[in-house]
Amino acid sequence: MILEGRPTRSIRRTEDGKGVVILDQRKLPWDVQWVELRDVDAAAVAIREMWTRGAPMIGATAAYGYAMALAADPGDANLQAAYETLFETRPTAINLRWALDAVRAAVAELPERERAAAAFRRADEICDEDAELCRAIGEHGLELFRELHARNPDRPLNILTHCNAGWLATVDYGTATAPIYLAHDAGIPVHVWVDETRPRNQGALLTAFELRNHGVPHTVIADNAGGLLMMKGQVDAVVVGTDRVTRNGDVCNKIGTYLKALAAHDNDVPFYVALPYTTFDPDTESGADIPIEERSAEELTRLSGPGASGEIGTVRVTDSPAANPAFDVTPARLVTGYITERGVLDRI
Amino acid sequence: MILEGRPTRSIRRTEDGKGVVILDQRKLPWDVQWVELRDVDAAAVAIREMWTRGAPMIGATAAYGYAMALAADPGDANLQAAYETLFETRPTAINLRWALDAVRAAVAELPERERAAAAFRRADEICDEDAELCRAIGEHGLELFRELHARNPDRPLNILTHCNAGWLATVDYGTATAPIYLAHDAGIPVHVWVDETRPRNQGALLTAFELRNHGVPHTVIADNAGGLLMMKGQVDAVVVGTDRVTRNGDVCNKIGTYLKALAAHDNDVPFYVALPYTTFDPDTESGADIPIEERSAEELTRLSGPGASGEIGTVRVTDSPAANPAFDVTPARLVTGYITERGVLDRI
Repeated sequence: MILEGRPTRSIRRTEDGKGVVILDQRKLPWDVQWVELRDVDAAAVAIREMWTRGAPMIGATAAYGYAMALAADPGDANLQAAYETLFETRPTAINLRWALDAVRAAVAELPERERAAAAFRRADEICDEDAELCRAIGEHGLELFRELHARNPDRPLNILTHCNAGWLATVDYGTATAPIYLAHDAGIPVHVWVDETRPRNQGALLTAFELRNHGVPHTVIADNAGGLLMMKGQVDAVVVGTDRVTRNGDVCNKIGTYLKALAAHDNDVPFYVALPYTTFDPDTESGADIPIEERSAEELTRLSGPGASGEIGTVRVTDSPAANPAFDVTPARLVTGYITERGVLDRI
Repeated sequence: MILEGRPTRSIRRTEDGKGVVILDQRKLPWDVQWVELRDVDAAAVAIREMWTRGAPMIGATAAYGYAMALAADPGDANLQAAYETLFETRPTAINLRWALDAVRAAVAELPERERAAAAFRRADEICDEDAELCRAIGEHGLELFRELHARNPDRPLNILTHCNAGWLATVDYGTATAPIYLAHDAGIPVHVWVDETRPRNQGALLTAFELRNHGVPHTVIADNAGGLLMMKGQVDAVVVGTDRVTRNGDVCNKIGTYLKALAAHDNDVPFYVALPYTTFDPDTESGADIPIEERSAEELTRLSGPGASGEIGTVRVTDSPAANPAFDVTPARLVTGYITERGVLDRI
């Protein structure tokens, strides 16, 4: 992806190779700050305090943090202690555990003096694999976009997306955004309707920031607007990411995704879910079995952003009680296809 | 309705009978300020500058403004001049013209000295008629609510509403809110899910304010949340107002209404539209014939509210381009019933 005019990734090694650099996402889009993580504690804080977010980025940051821990102390005791330090930052993040296990497996049988270098190499591989995986998702999505654009070649291809399943959450490309970036880079005139994505506004803040930096034409809309746009023929496809797809194909994603899927279905607009295969959860039968996280009401009742002076301020949205379910479930019957690194599937 | 613990109406005569008092809605809910309008120019400013809003309130304010003009100068020249002054404040507001015509018809044939008193009486009648009309809508909706509550008598009756079709827009009761207030007053344990209603947040600001003052239990939610709540069986009915219902029964209402109608339909939740008969527009065949107003993007990209100090501040939501269509169309096939002052209709 392009950020501030330069090709980059969401995580990369420092010049001396001993640490990593990530974006502090808490300040985006208002303040673009790269921060250096130079030891395991810094990596743990970055994950726990959500300087970074998204399963792939959490896994990559943890893998490098593990390597940094082994650079400081490659002994067996630290091999276990550092694992636990990092694992406890977000114990429910399945990709975090997977990345730590991968690094440990790569180094556990090695002599102590070889462990740090091997751990860094494995962390590099994890990043390369994730970038390649997202690129493959993008390639398969690109084929779909080419077909859609060919139907109306004289106008931009209008894609609607919800929340942020972009490169900020992955090492590069993103998932839902990967076909968008590849299409844009391939010269297809793509325009993106960006759902604001209340209450945390990841669309208006993060997805819009990504697209702006990459130079992709886009328009932020209220979450309420997508239905009308589809009815008016102004959306060629909806593409979203997902946190989990259950055995029957139901899609757990950011609250409001279901409403867009209903509108797409009602207007014959294709509705695609972009995901790596690892997001399939064959152990959960259907969306009805997924507990919905209820987050703090303050995410809805307070809103922060730059005020007239440019300083970040917070204003109240309402003084009434509020509820804040974070995810909803889109039934498989509303999904046109699943864009994965292995191809586009009609059904799971 | 109840405001700050006292029964009141949205517009009432001053104690000396020579002016009227209305709420300055631009400051709600953060600052509850009644303002006195004592001449036609004040009434014109209040309408033009949107101190008051909603077709009934615009009509009532204009009717009283006309009466105040005739109290100052009941001559034929002013009968015409005051009409024009008031009409030009919101020339597309059909109820404004209707109210002015009603007052003029009531006084035009009278001697000049009787005109002001007759105009005030006609304005009083217009208010009484509007309150009675909303109460009748409420009575018919109340019967529906009784039936719905009887199906699950052991739990609150959960109503979801979008935007503000409440007493702030009418003389009393509101339209979509009328059944809610009557049900609450009748002892039915009603709870309201209040859609925030981005981008102008009329739900979080105005509807929540109304319900809070009347003591009706309610919870503000992101516009994205309603689909999940319906899927989880936590909504017994959706009730919304409307700006216009076309000959075929399509419903033009605040942007996002259509998405809630789709979710209601998908989950067998009844979807009702509350409206006075005057909102039917038999001259427009269907929703496809309604031009959609595109409002300023700043309504989406800036948000105002009290900051930490209590003073009203404004923060940026995004720096990207934004679009802001104000209304959408809900096809008649998604509407369970139209709650009118004459009864509940299955179809138009």
